[in-house]
Amino acid sequence: MDKYAEKMLRSLENPVQTGEYPDLKNNADLAMFLKQSVEKGILYTNVQDGKIVYFTAENYSQMHQNTAYELMYVLDGTVIKQIEDKKYTLHTGEGYILNRRITHSDDVQDGFLLVLDFSEEFFREVTRSIDIREDTHPVFSFIEKCGQDSSGWRKSYLEFSPTVPLPNEQFRTVLDSLQQELATKKIGASFLQKGLFLRLVELLENKKMFNVNAIDIHSGKEDFLVERLTSYIVRKYGNVSRRDVEKDLHYNDEYLNRLLKKACGKTISRYAAEIRLDRARQLLSTTSLTIGEITNLLEFSSENYFYHFFKKAEGISPSRYRAEHHD
Amino acid sequence: MDKYAEKMLRSLENPVQTGEYPDLKNNADLAMFLKQSVEKGILYTNVQDGKIVYFTAENYSQMHQNTAYELMYVLDGTVIKQIEDKKYTLHTGEGYILNRRITHSDDVQDGFLLVLDFSEEFFREVTRSIDIREDTHPVFSFIEKCGQDSSGWRKSYLEFSPTVPLPNEQFRTVLDSLQQELATKKIGASFLQKGLFLRLVELLENKKMFNVNAIDIHSGKEDFLVERLTSYIVRKYGNVSRRDVEKDLHYNDEYLNRLLKKACGKTISRYAAEIRLDRARQLLSTTSLTIGEITNLLEFSSENYFYHFFKKAEGISPSRYRAEHHD
Repeated sequence: MDKYAEKMLRSLENPVQTGEYPDLKNNADLAMFLKQSVEKGILYTNVQDGKIVYFTAENYSQMHQNTAYELMYVLDGTVIKQIEDKKYTLHTGEGYILNRRITHSDDVQDGFLLVLDFSEEFFREVTRSIDIREDTHPVFSFIEKCGQDSSGWRKSYLEFSPTVPLPNEQFRTVLDSLQQELATKKIGASFLQKGLFLRLVELLENKKMFNVNAIDIHSGKEDFLVERLTSYIVRKYGNVSRRDVEKDLHYNDEYLNRLLKKACGKTISRYAAEIRLDRARQLLSTTSLTIGEITNLLEFSSENYFYHFFKKAEGISPSRYRAEHHD
Repeated sequence: MDKYAEKMLRSLENPVQTGEYPDLKNNADLAMFLKQSVEKGILYTNVQDGKIVYFTAENYSQMHQNTAYELMYVLDGTVIKQIEDKKYTLHTGEGYILNRRITHSDDVQDGFLLVLDFSEEFFREVTRSIDIREDTHPVFSFIEKCGQDSSGWRKSYLEFSPTVPLPNEQFRTVLDSLQQELATKKIGASFLQKGLFLRLVELLENKKMFNVNAIDIHSGKEDFLVERLTSYIVRKYGNVSRRDVEKDLHYNDEYLNRLLKKACGKTISRYAAEIRLDRARQLLSTTSLTIGEITNLLEFSSENYFYHFFKKAEGISPSRYRAEHHD
């Protein structure tokens, strides 16, 4: 378990340990749940209404629908997420926002999952004075649209993954503070919860931090596949071969390649190389990681290969690029 | 200037420096002003509506009334505060909450003063769901009563001072965060401002941190003098002689001593010694300061004298007391 996850657990002040399986229903407008794999199964923690309750039980991953929206985020390790009839493997820093109509389950095999439930009323209230437009506020806009959907049967979800393979400290700090405010009955907690919730969603809209992808389950099969494919490549930071694609998405790679070319004019390799270059540029200009560290993070086979890959695509060496573009 | 004050100044990101004397009127529900003595006069900083404006001008300390409530707090150094016809010298960590009808001025000779203005409407809105009772929420209750005063001419203020002569880090942290939220236009800022404002006022109600004293200017002269006297002794941590009292309050010490005895049955020396003992107990049980450091903070002439003073009053030595009572 990484340090953050450890700290998160330690910070649970005055928790109530229940012997029985408590009622985990969410009655609050905003509630946080944590699921963490431990020796004897799963440690469940529920933070809402100024209280923290936790208990250990067997791994429980039944398919269910929520009465609220659900933001889930992998704090550490690996979580198997089933959405309707498809399974996805999520890693540290990845997550989803699901609308209420999605049937889903989370299987925490070896990881630490955070779930934030929020009601439609809560969302409407906190965003009342915000001008939500799709171009400037894609995530707020996605959630708002789910609420406006009068037919009531559209199933959609939003997936997000970190743009660079590093822990997002800002996002974690806001989550920490939000947990503290949900666990306290101190004066001002409800205002602070609202403000921190808005900050959290706003961070998801920061393109330097997260790739966000809204998916409509009832869109055409081809569109759906292209979305799954590009989102897969983005989450892997472009480090994929056509064989990986075939293996992980369970579709013939030739077929997927044809679909992608039709959709955006690029082959899988070309698309992946562009994403990879983009991530390399970002790490060079916004961090002080060494070239060796970036080589490892983006899973290039060697510094030498990274150097040639970058120079060929960008025209200058990684160090030169950094010198010219560092913030 | 201490580190905190320096940090507070450095943290003013993207300030707008105005050549002219800007309109310093407060149009926001909540606004922060900073006044700091610098070489060429006073550096004025105004933080509200997502903006920071600052300018340097001559020391300006005209008597005025506010359109809002005013919370003032000395971040560093010394400020001469005039309230109606009386002058008070305030030191680091001390402050006031004034209602709108008080005519007052602040003279920052060599110090750093923070002023937080908040409107009656703002206060009513943020406290709507709080059960304000005088016994549990003395500071909230004081402010609420000012608003309910239908005659509209009662002049009252609330003074507060730190219970121990140490910087109150928690209070400063909340002030820092509040300043950040007043200076930003980020989503969620208005909720965070409200929550942080409530936390700030709540800290003033924490008896381990602050002595609070509500003063009604129209109360009888004798009551008023007793209040000034006890508040003076408390702010000096009990380190006062009858000569100090006479010099600083401009009243005959014999007369003041008689008034105090009539009010609470204690002489000035007895009252001062009790306050001093109380502060010593608090520093021993809640901090890890050495006996030497406590001797200096409470201005005992020597460790030896502190030892005897404590042992005589408490029956045990300072170290023994700490061993038995440390948190």
